[in-house]
Amino acid sequence: MATGRTHRPATRSRGIPEATVARLPLYLRALTALSERSVPTVSSEELAAAAGVNSAKLRKDFSYLGSYGTRGVGYDVEYLVYQISRELGLTQDWPVVIVGIGNLGAALANYGGFASRGFRVAALIDADPAMAGRQVAGIAVQHSDELEKIISDNGVSIGVITTPPGVAQQVCDRLVAAGVTSILNFAPTVLSVPDGVDVRKVDLSIELQILAFHEQRKAGEETAGEDAVAASVPKETPKGPDGDVPVVMPA
Amino acid sequence: MATGRTHRPATRSRGIPEATVARLPLYLRALTALSERSVPTVSSEELAAAAGVNSAKLRKDFSYLGSYGTRGVGYDVEYLVYQISRELGLTQDWPVVIVGIGNLGAALANYGGFASRGFRVAALIDADPAMAGRQVAGIAVQHSDELEKIISDNGVSIGVITTPPGVAQQVCDRLVAAGVTSILNFAPTVLSVPDGVDVRKVDLSIELQILAFHEQRKAGEETAGEDAVAASVPKETPKGPDGDVPVVMPA
Repeated sequence: MATGRTHRPATRSRGIPEATVARLPLYLRALTALSERSVPTVSSEELAAAAGVNSAKLRKDFSYLGSYGTRGVGYDVEYLVYQISRELGLTQDWPVVIVGIGNLGAALANYGGFASRGFRVAALIDADPAMAGRQVAGIAVQHSDELEKIISDNGVSIGVITTPPGVAQQVCDRLVAAGVTSILNFAPTVLSVPDGVDVRKVDLSIELQILAFHEQRKAGEETAGEDAVAASVPKETPKGPDGDVPVVMPA
Repeated sequence: MATGRTHRPATRSRGIPEATVARLPLYLRALTALSERSVPTVSSEELAAAAGVNSAKLRKDFSYLGSYGTRGVGYDVEYLVYQISRELGLTQDWPVVIVGIGNLGAALANYGGFASRGFRVAALIDADPAMAGRQVAGIAVQHSDELEKIISDNGVSIGVITTPPGVAQQVCDRLVAAGVTSILNFAPTVLSVPDGVDVRKVDLSIELQILAFHEQRKAGEETAGEDAVAASVPKETPKGPDGDVPVVMPA
């Protein structure tokens, strides 16, 4: 079979734009909530509002999945949950290691949202010998001397780094050398990785910055009587503003 | 892409679109890194790459700030840092309370990225009497009976909820009743708030879902020899996805 893409539409899984990929988890989360309430179908408008996305953008996104819904009925909730989970690769088991078991590492180990999405915490790793053997979230912490063996034994491809910033690059290098190809970095530092390795960096302060912007605006509205510019702010409140809301920095 | 508000105009008070507001912290972070290396100017292409945003989008975003750069020279780094900080309201002090001092609350209390952005942890609050008085990140934890007094005494308008999900709504209600108008919710539950209150909800598993998508794609490429369609997939790692990288769910 050397005929290229003739049998597949251009919107096949690997042709999904990055921005659409980033929205799939939002749809999935909203759909899971509907599924838990046994809602059978959902309109694009309802789902868009629940996911906080513009409904035209949602329909475009779903067209990449080959999912067009039924006019007057909407989308089948269960089928969409299945389609998006499959597209994201969540129908398989992803063993994950967390390196650096301080407060944040422990919080992530205890985070219920991982397991429910197919992410199994395969191991917790810490450089402190005093931590080795200690139980966190029901898992015994292992010493970082074992890192390479743990990665190899568990077939781990995703590593979460919650170490202090000063050692994050070294931990990252060891993870990559041992075969990890995706890194979720919580350490406040920029990591260098070779081509073919994905890094996503979480900055927990970015959300607060966006809230601060709105707080500042609200403070401005309170003094609207004294401020003609603030007073001209439209008061209507449309649903689902179409905004990018990144917490993550590129590697 | 999703935002934390369902009742905000898509165009901001000063004419800045919601999506642009969400990108300002990304630019600020990249600019701060340049500033720390004493880089005086930066081109839109360089800055866009560092922030993981399309450069045309960056130029459009900066035009809302009235910042157009100088052809052949680029943008003045220090001035842009100042402009964006001012726009986001980061040039003022934002006292923040964190409610629920488990691992995640403690991790956030210790998180250096807050203080450097003008967010001062004014108080740590927990419902467990055994926690009261305990020092976390150099701050004595206070009992939740004091919540209303703490909010009022410190003029707090931003609350961070890191409680178990079962009590998050109740905590949210008390924060709002006490005068908090912005909530950053880490609890895995959906909060209801009155109009005029902003909620942003962090889902830490969303990033892992996006990594899983890429892992799945990489696994597909490894079998490219057997699959001409997979072999036609471009090999470059998606560096700097164009803007939309959400960790946040709508409230």
